[in-house]
Amino acid sequence: MSSNQTAAGGRPLPLEGIRVIDLSHVYNGPYATFLMAMAGADVIKVEPLQGEHLRSRGDLGGAALPYAMLNSNKKAVTLNLKTGKGRALLLEMVARADVLVENFAPGVMDRLGLGADALLQRNPRLIYGSSSGYGKTGPYRDYPAMDLVMQAMTGVIDATGFPDQPPVKAGAAICDFMAGIHLYAAIATALYERERTGAGRVVEVSMQEATYASLASNLGMLYLRGDEAPARTGNRHGGLGISPYNVYAAQDGYVVLNSPGDHHFRAILDVLGRPDLKTDPRFLTRTTRVQNFEAVDELIETWTRTLPKDEIARRMLAAKVPCAPVRRLAQVMNDENMHARGTLQWVDHPELGRVVLQNSPLIFEGSERQALEPSLPLGASNREVFGDWLGHSAQELEQLQANEVIGPSR
Amino acid sequence: MSSNQTAAGGRPLPLEGIRVIDLSHVYNGPYATFLMAMAGADVIKVEPLQGEHLRSRGDLGGAALPYAMLNSNKKAVTLNLKTGKGRALLLEMVARADVLVENFAPGVMDRLGLGADALLQRNPRLIYGSSSGYGKTGPYRDYPAMDLVMQAMTGVIDATGFPDQPPVKAGAAICDFMAGIHLYAAIATALYERERTGAGRVVEVSMQEATYASLASNLGMLYLRGDEAPARTGNRHGGLGISPYNVYAAQDGYVVLNSPGDHHFRAILDVLGRPDLKTDPRFLTRTTRVQNFEAVDELIETWTRTLPKDEIARRMLAAKVPCAPVRRLAQVMNDENMHARGTLQWVDHPELGRVVLQNSPLIFEGSERQALEPSLPLGASNREVFGDWLGHSAQELEQLQANEVIGPSR
Repeated sequence: MSSNQTAAGGRPLPLEGIRVIDLSHVYNGPYATFLMAMAGADVIKVEPLQGEHLRSRGDLGGAALPYAMLNSNKKAVTLNLKTGKGRALLLEMVARADVLVENFAPGVMDRLGLGADALLQRNPRLIYGSSSGYGKTGPYRDYPAMDLVMQAMTGVIDATGFPDQPPVKAGAAICDFMAGIHLYAAIATALYERERTGAGRVVEVSMQEATYASLASNLGMLYLRGDEAPARTGNRHGGLGISPYNVYAAQDGYVVLNSPGDHHFRAILDVLGRPDLKTDPRFLTRTTRVQNFEAVDELIETWTRTLPKDEIARRMLAAKVPCAPVRRLAQVMNDENMHARGTLQWVDHPELGRVVLQNSPLIFEGSERQALEPSLPLGASNREVFGDWLGHSAQELEQLQANEVIGPSR
Repeated sequence: MSSNQTAAGGRPLPLEGIRVIDLSHVYNGPYATFLMAMAGADVIKVEPLQGEHLRSRGDLGGAALPYAMLNSNKKAVTLNLKTGKGRALLLEMVARADVLVENFAPGVMDRLGLGADALLQRNPRLIYGSSSGYGKTGPYRDYPAMDLVMQAMTGVIDATGFPDQPPVKAGAAICDFMAGIHLYAAIATALYERERTGAGRVVEVSMQEATYASLASNLGMLYLRGDEAPARTGNRHGGLGISPYNVYAAQDGYVVLNSPGDHHFRAILDVLGRPDLKTDPRFLTRTTRVQNFEAVDELIETWTRTLPKDEIARRMLAAKVPCAPVRRLAQVMNDENMHARGTLQWVDHPELGRVVLQNSPLIFEGSERQALEPSLPLGASNREVFGDWLGHSAQELEQLQANEVIGPSR
C-alpha cells in the first residue's frame, strides 16, 4: 500500500501511517474520513457493489459534486458484506487497520456479525467509530434519521425563519456535518489515548447531540424569557440581545451588520454620515439600542438601500464594523481568501471536469497540505487493496468477482 | 491541581492528565475546550479582569445559560495580559501546559508578545490552537468576524429561506460551533502526533473554511444547473433531488418527511390509506416524484393537516418512514433520548438555579462520563491556580491583585 507523500522539508502530516477502513455513506461518516485522509491517513472507502447512496444518486439531485468533495484522497473498493467471504475480507482488513468508521443505523453491524465487540476482539488496538441519528442507546435509537429529520428534532427548523412565516430548515446540512466532524474528533482523541494505553476504543456520536450546543443563544433566550421567548427571530440575534444585528436590503441584494459594541455603533453612524445621532438616547448603549431595534434597523436600511452590497461592506469594514455582503454560492466557491489559503482548489476531475474541491479546514502549520487526489470510480482500488495489500492472487480476485463478493477490479 | 475523577471500574477518560490553557471567548474556542474538559482534561479558563464577552453580556440577551453550557468543568482565573507580570504568569502556565487555545483576531497574541512562536519556544511540546473568522493568512484575515457575518460570507444565509422571500440566517450559530469542533479536532490530532514525535504543533481553523462542506448539496445543485440553480429551496431538498422532502403543516404545528427510497414512498401511501396510488406513474420512482413534487407535497399535506404532529410522526415511524415533528426548543431541552443517554442533565447551578446542561456529544464507551461541575464565578480558581499550582504565596497574590494583574482571589 503506497504511503502518502510528504513535501520536501516539511513535517509529515500528523495521521501519516494510520489506516482507516471507511464503511460510511453520504455526508456524516465520509466527512470524518475525508478529514483523516487530508491529515495524512490511508483511507480505504468500502462500498457495496452498486456504490454507496451518494454515488448512486448522482444523476438527479446534484450528488456528483458532493461525492467528489467528500471522497478525495480515498482508495475505493467494493465489497459485499452480505456474503461470508465478504465479511472475511473485511476482517482481514480490520486486523491490519487502526480505525473503522461506519454510519449505518444502530444494530446493522451487529446483525452482520461485524459489531464493535467482534472487531475489537480481532484487533484490540482498533478504534471503532460510529455515528447515527440518535445514538446506539436510548429510546429513539431505531428512528430513521436524515439531516432534515434531525433539524426538526433538534429545534433548528423551529428556530429558523421569520416570526410571521412558517419555520424553514437551515440551507446547509448542519446536522450531518456537525456529526461528521464530532466523529472525527472522537476518533482522533481515541488515537491519542491509544498511544498512551495501547488499547483501542469504541467511540460514538449522534447527530442529535452533536447539534444541541449550536442553539446556545436560543436556549439562553428561552431561559431568560420562558414562554415569551419567540420561536424564531428572523435575521435578528437569536437571543435578541444585540442591535444592530440583521440582514439589510442593499441596492443589489443584501448585507449583514452585527454591532455588539457601542464603539461599533458610533463607527456606523460616522459611515452613515450621521455623527449627530451619537448622543441620541435611543442609540447610546447596547441596552437602549435593543429596546429601540426597529428605529436602529430603519436608520441603517434607509442608507443601505442606496448602495451596492459590496460597497457597503467595503465602507463598513474600513471602519472596523463587522459587516458582509450576503454572498451567492457561486461567489463563495470562488472566494479569494479560501483559494489563497489553499483550502479551495480548482481541480481537473476525471469524471466531472474542472471543479472546485476543498482541502481540509484543519490546518497543521509546518506541514505542506496533502495534494488533492480526485475521488475514484467505484472499485478502482480493488486490485491494490485485496491483491497487493491483503495478498490475494489474481485468480482469487477473479473468483471473488464471479461470486459477487467484490465488484470488477480495475 | 486536583486530578479529574474516574468512575470505579471504568477506564479513565482519554484526555486525563492533559492541561489546557483556555484564553478563548464566546462560543467557538469555549466549545472546543468544553469538550476537552468533558473528555478528562484539566482546563483553566483565563479571562480578563472584567470577564470574557459572553460572561459580561449575561444581563440582556440571555447569555447566562450559554456561558454555563460551555464552561462546565473548567477552572476560572482572571489575568490581565496587558501587564508584563500578567504575561509572565501566562508563560509560567504555558511551560506546564499541553494545550493553549485562543480565538482572538489574528495578530492579537503576537502583539502581546505571546504569539505561537514565542510560546512554543517556551514549551516545545505545546499544542497551540487558534481559530478566527477567515484564518491567519489570506486577504480577509483582518475582517471582523462573527457568526452572522460568517453565515453571510459562507453562503449559508443566501441558501436559507423560501425562494420568494428574503434570505434568512440559520437559527443556530453554526459557523461558531462548526469552527469550535473543528478546532478541537485539530488539537486532538496534534496531541496524537505529539505522542509519536514528541513535538508540539500550531494548528488553526477558520470559521469560513469549517462551514464550507456543509453546503455540499447546494454546491452540487449549482454544479448541475449553473445559473438556473435557485439560491434557496425553502424546506425542499437543497439539491432538489428528493421528493417527498419538505415541512408539512399539521393540525397543531408542522412535521417533516424525507423519503429518499421508493419503498419509503409506498409505505407513506399505506399510512395515508392510498395504496391505489402505488401504480400512479407520477409517483413510481424518485425521478418521477421529483418531477411532480407539487403533486406529491399536496397529497401529503392534505393528509397531515388533519392530524396532530406527534400522531403523524408516530404513524410514519411505525412504517419506518423518516419523519419528525418540528419541535419547539422547550421540548428539545427535555428530549427523553438525550436525557436517557446522559448527554443532557438537569443541574442545580449555583447562579442560575435548576437548568439543563449538556455533557459531551463525544461518547467514549467503557468510561463513565465526566460528572458535570457547574461553571464557576469569575476568578474562582485564582488561588488554586496561581497559588497551589504555580506556587505563588498568598502575599504575592495580594500584590498581584493590588496591581490589577489578577482579579480578586476567592
